Amino acid sequence: MEIVVFFQKIIITDMINKFNFKLLSKDKNARLGKLETAHGDIDTPIFMPVGTAASVKAMHLRDVKASGAQIILANTYHLMLRPGQENIKKMGGVRKFMGWNKPLLTDSGGFQIMSLGKLRKIQNDGVTFKSHLDGTKYFLSPEISTDIQNSLDATITMQLDECIPFPASYEESERAMKLSLEWAIKSREAFQNRTGYGQFGIIQGSIFPDLREESSKKLTELNFEGYAIGGLAVGEGQEFMFETLDNTTKFMLENKPRYLMGVGKPDDLVGAIKRGVDMFDCVLPTRSGRTGQAFTSKGQVNIKNSRHSLDTRPLDIGCNCETCRNYSRAYLHHLFKAQEILGLMLLSLHNIHFYLNLMKNIRESIKNSDFDKFEKTFLENYYSGDIDII
Amino acid sequence: MEIVVFFQKIIITDMINKFNFKLLSKDKNARLGKLETAHGDIDTPIFMPVGTAASVKAMHLRDVKASGAQIILANTYHLMLRPGQENIKKMGGVRKFMGWNKPLLTDSGGFQIMSLGKLRKIQNDGVTFKSHLDGTKYFLSPEISTDIQNSLDATITMQLDECIPFPASYEESERAMKLSLEWAIKSREAFQNRTGYGQFGIIQGSIFPDLREESSKKLTELNFEGYAIGGLAVGEGQEFMFETLDNTTKFMLENKPRYLMGVGKPDDLVGAIKRGVDMFDCVLPTRSGRTGQAFTSKGQVNIKNSRHSLDTRPLDIGCNCETCRNYSRAYLHHLFKAQEILGLMLLSLHNIHFYLNLMKNIRESIKNSDFDKFEKTFLENYYSGDIDII
Repeated sequence: MEIVVFFQKIIITDMINKFNFKLLSKDKNARLGKLETAHGDIDTPIFMPVGTAASVKAMHLRDVKASGAQIILANTYHLMLRPGQENIKKMGGVRKFMGWNKPLLTDSGGFQIMSLGKLRKIQNDGVTFKSHLDGTKYFLSPEISTDIQNSLDATITMQLDECIPFPASYEESERAMKLSLEWAIKSREAFQNRTGYGQFGIIQGSIFPDLREESSKKLTELNFEGYAIGGLAVGEGQEFMFETLDNTTKFMLENKPRYLMGVGKPDDLVGAIKRGVDMFDCVLPTRSGRTGQAFTSKGQVNIKNSRHSLDTRPLDIGCNCETCRNYSRAYLHHLFKAQEILGLMLLSLHNIHFYLNLMKNIRESIKNSDFDKFEKTFLENYYSGDIDII
Repeated sequence: MEIVVFFQKIIITDMINKFNFKLLSKDKNARLGKLETAHGDIDTPIFMPVGTAASVKAMHLRDVKASGAQIILANTYHLMLRPGQENIKKMGGVRKFMGWNKPLLTDSGGFQIMSLGKLRKIQNDGVTFKSHLDGTKYFLSPEISTDIQNSLDATITMQLDECIPFPASYEESERAMKLSLEWAIKSREAFQNRTGYGQFGIIQGSIFPDLREESSKKLTELNFEGYAIGGLAVGEGQEFMFETLDNTTKFMLENKPRYLMGVGKPDDLVGAIKRGVDMFDCVLPTRSGRTGQAFTSKGQVNIKNSRHSLDTRPLDIGCNCETCRNYSRAYLHHLFKAQEILGLMLLSLHNIHFYLNLMKNIRESIKNSDFDKFEKTFLENYYSGDIDII
């Protein structure tokens, strides 16, 4: 009997190392899940802090960890330019390079390249572009992007896709969606699967339901380890985004993780989770933090506003982050006025904590089949506006 | 018997709250001491990290604490301009404002104002100057500076003095030294002493031994709680600085703390401690950290140099700081190349740790009557140059 248990344990251990998504429970369309990877488990819904150049900007890694982050994102485009594929490979990948021992997702480089405008040219086999740093010419194809992400040792690799701006015509949206499908096939073929690693396909099709449906269904056939919804948060607004999510998630597999790329504000995340999304990334909490914008349970706060100059209260009274536990609004206001780096550090820390804490509370609410009530309370509070001046 | 012990304890507790310097031991001229203040004890020799505008730049306060810092410095000039005397007073002083619960020293504002050049005018009763921020006119006198520092709730208040550049003529040096003496008297009269708080007089006289002697002796009569040596590290070089220290410390009281203002590099500190100095402040570790310069046991390292780009070793193999325990030179190099704020954060943290750890090791060596050997080993190592490329 004991021997049997022993063998079972070995089998279980082996299972954990595989890349695997478990849908634990649902509350209407909101999903509670666990994504198992080579580098640890991820509780979903989850927000992934963005570590563009192998650093979550203005944050010590221990604070990223302490915030409850379970996976972070790094940008292939930035890392391929600097320090470069070969250097990162020699350093053992991004995770080892930056000292992050949990899962890491890398984008394909496509999104940044698309936004280079005149500096890039799209062909069927890939994109030629000039580095924004020194004008050096590069070529990125589905195969090359996948190979670079392999060198970066990404736990989750993204296919190369073409992300178009909003608004876009039906024809342009269809063309880009079909090119993205071709690139999905090539990316999938180039992917060197290792135990516990995964690759996500990216659904495109702008705001057109039939294009989203076609993209979802064809990608499903490629049997990716997960699926992303791309081409949103590009200016279409929350209403179109939610509508498109409704028209997309219904065609996505239940047993694969769903990742909404580049989204968004706290209320965007709540609405997307309601529509069945599991994973998010966005530069907003760190970028906003660096410009003096804080996210609180009562909406956004511009700490540079003079109303805070003598306010001894924390940013968010209910927040348990290091910033809120130790510093007043008056002090944070002063740091921004005096252009002290510590200001950026403390607001970035708070914002990342706010996002991860939101995810934690949402997971709890789904577990308790209480998501609707959570959403209602959260949004009422979030839209109610900042606390009054004392 | 037990009752006696109990009462003794009460008396001892009361004693600790008084501002008091204990000279614990000497190794030739090097001194080991303990400075007791209202906000805690300070082991000397000690280095005080500079928190110009109520923030040690690019550092979380918990890291300043973890580095072994026991007292920090804040700049009256910067704080009187922003957020201003009244605002800081309302916030309960600088320590409460920034969340620092240990001792704090404020300078008098004089040094920054002297360096404003054309923007300031010195008269016998004080200095008129224009803010470097918006040109607003201010007047700073010994009385006003002392009053502001009282509002800042500084554990240690500095007298207002006139610090002249190097080189300066004998006549100019004598004039400024005598004006500083007059201001010392006025500063002393304006000082509102509270239990555990202290005020330091500042010895001037450029590199002229008789002026330093006169300044030291006359200031002694004013019975300050401590004495600073000002007007050094203004371009005179290490040799002149050491010579002037030799010609100054011999006229200073043994039972009062001695503070060398604005100094310096690690080897400057070692040489000054050898000559009987107890306290230091300098922007060097944080300012250098922000430009990619690291202090290590083998001298200064410019992390931006390409020789570090693939070096998996820490900045300083023997260093126990968070930066050295977790990050490679290659990663730090990358962060500076990519202009990531985390680079400044990690190097500032390392440098402050290096300075405080140096102080700790020096205190240990004085305690063991081993300072000469420590100095020899430290300097040999420090001047030997960085580790070879692998």
